[in-house]
Amino acid sequence: MSELRKDPIIGRWVIIANERGKRPSDFLSPVQNRKKKSGFCPFCPGNEFSTPSEIMSFRGSGGKGPWTLRAVANKFPALQIEGELERSSEGIFGKMNGIGAHEVIIETPDHGASLATMDRKSAEDVLWAFHSRFTDLKKDKRFKYVLVFKNEGEDAGATLEHSHSQIIALPFVPKRIQEELDSARRYFDFMESCIFCDLIDQEMFFNKRIIHQNNGYVAMAPFAPRVPFETWIMPKSHESSFRPQVNDFSKLAEILQIVLKKLDKLLDAPPYNLIIHTSPLTEDDNIYYHWHIEILPKLVKPAGFEWGTGFYINPTSPEDSAKFMREA
Amino acid sequence: MSELRKDPIIGRWVIIANERGKRPSDFLSPVQNRKKKSGFCPFCPGNEFSTPSEIMSFRGSGGKGPWTLRAVANKFPALQIEGELERSSEGIFGKMNGIGAHEVIIETPDHGASLATMDRKSAEDVLWAFHSRFTDLKKDKRFKYVLVFKNEGEDAGATLEHSHSQIIALPFVPKRIQEELDSARRYFDFMESCIFCDLIDQEMFFNKRIIHQNNGYVAMAPFAPRVPFETWIMPKSHESSFRPQVNDFSKLAEILQIVLKKLDKLLDAPPYNLIIHTSPLTEDDNIYYHWHIEILPKLVKPAGFEWGTGFYINPTSPEDSAKFMREA
Repeated sequence: MSELRKDPIIGRWVIIANERGKRPSDFLSPVQNRKKKSGFCPFCPGNEFSTPSEIMSFRGSGGKGPWTLRAVANKFPALQIEGELERSSEGIFGKMNGIGAHEVIIETPDHGASLATMDRKSAEDVLWAFHSRFTDLKKDKRFKYVLVFKNEGEDAGATLEHSHSQIIALPFVPKRIQEELDSARRYFDFMESCIFCDLIDQEMFFNKRIIHQNNGYVAMAPFAPRVPFETWIMPKSHESSFRPQVNDFSKLAEILQIVLKKLDKLLDAPPYNLIIHTSPLTEDDNIYYHWHIEILPKLVKPAGFEWGTGFYINPTSPEDSAKFMREA
Repeated sequence: MSELRKDPIIGRWVIIANERGKRPSDFLSPVQNRKKKSGFCPFCPGNEFSTPSEIMSFRGSGGKGPWTLRAVANKFPALQIEGELERSSEGIFGKMNGIGAHEVIIETPDHGASLATMDRKSAEDVLWAFHSRFTDLKKDKRFKYVLVFKNEGEDAGATLEHSHSQIIALPFVPKRIQEELDSARRYFDFMESCIFCDLIDQEMFFNKRIIHQNNGYVAMAPFAPRVPFETWIMPKSHESSFRPQVNDFSKLAEILQIVLKKLDKLLDAPPYNLIIHTSPLTEDDNIYYHWHIEILPKLVKPAGFEWGTGFYINPTSPEDSAKFMREA
């Protein structure tokens, strides 16, 4: 029989429809055209003229070699950086002008590499680039939240296949993050502990949904996953905002690449969305919220009502997906 | 410049990225394979044996003719109808067994017809079928909410192209609906009026986002739409739950078909999701919530972060889409 499960943090119900019992092989697309193609790519070395201005770059040979990573402005930004933030209303409606930042991190000069397959140092550099842009955008008092995300594969919304991530700075806190914050704050008021810390303790104790762990981080299938093989990566100790541990991203890069490699192996390099959930800039150091990475493979089409209801039907239980992932 | 807009009911921010300024023609797919195909269809007359048991049907000639609409159990139900509802917990996690109903309304015997193109009487019958199943499932005290939705087209999640809708009865209220209810209740506490009624009044007064109206209903582009051409249909007078007006669905069928025909004409029969938002079964007659239909055309791929953040980037303003729709 199916099971209805409620995520304790966000309060979202999902149906784990185990009868539909999907194994990883059920999600492989019949046509395997997920290989990277050639053709003109604006993110490849030599084509730097075709991107908007560079915001920062990492370079080899003590900063004098060719670039190994670039951050550039988004060519089609959803928000623009210049101007004062202006709020207005239209009766019961509220609006602001579209002030914000929209940047692209070109993660590697190698068109054929992915965040899963690039070498460890390059993956660390991607995290350092996130952190650098995060820290810089935080200085801008117009912004309340910095959203770091990555779309891998066309079906996950990527318009260019060269491995890249995006950063959007917003003058508001996105709804889903605000809901997690509110819920975590209520839990703290009641229990005087961080709900994510308690969740990690419980998951480590039951050990049914843990995928991998190292010194600093744990990767798990959440109790009420929206989609098959949804995976969260969290720092084991309490950290409210995205940051390196002891000035080091090696442990995070390690577990992230292990998770992505397992997904690649099990599901033939699936399209996925990766999102960093972190505290708002105005309360980035707090005792109730715990930053984490959410990875959502795009294996099934949403069933329609999922857009309108915020509840999901998932054919794969997290206990099964964690087992497949552990063994991959 | 883009504009940030907040939906007053759900509290969700969207970016209206007008620079990307999409006209209807920008959304037409290059390959026009949206025409209905032939081949074996379990929903066609003569193949009744291939669906699960019939729950109800409408028939011509005083009930003695061939069926004109059928409701059947879903062949791959996400939830099952038999059994007692059992709640349990696992530490901080809550769960229930998968009790619920999952039904399919086969809207017409005509494989080539759609909800937009079928005759008016057949569209009315679809609404009567929704109402009949709604009223019947409401008697089951295990259920808190009846979700009526329709996926049109493969890209919107439909697995069969023969025009059909789905009904899911749930032992909980979906998160998005609960948020609308909570917000509407807070507004009522403050203003002593229904936020949807106030919104309709304001929209009729400004007349920038109204698409169509008749005696009983109004169709509009919402102020903060998630996707291009998102459309809501609402009763003009206060009605908390989905029901006919004076025992008549003709006005609702009329405006629904007008909206769907306009979408078909502008966007070449786009895939879409249609969802009815209504009050929970346990408080179906109330003064603060207002039932409505939400129609979301599937024209753009979600941008990845939309799953993880609950905020959306929409390239078409509702003022533009309402204008295109009015003139279509």
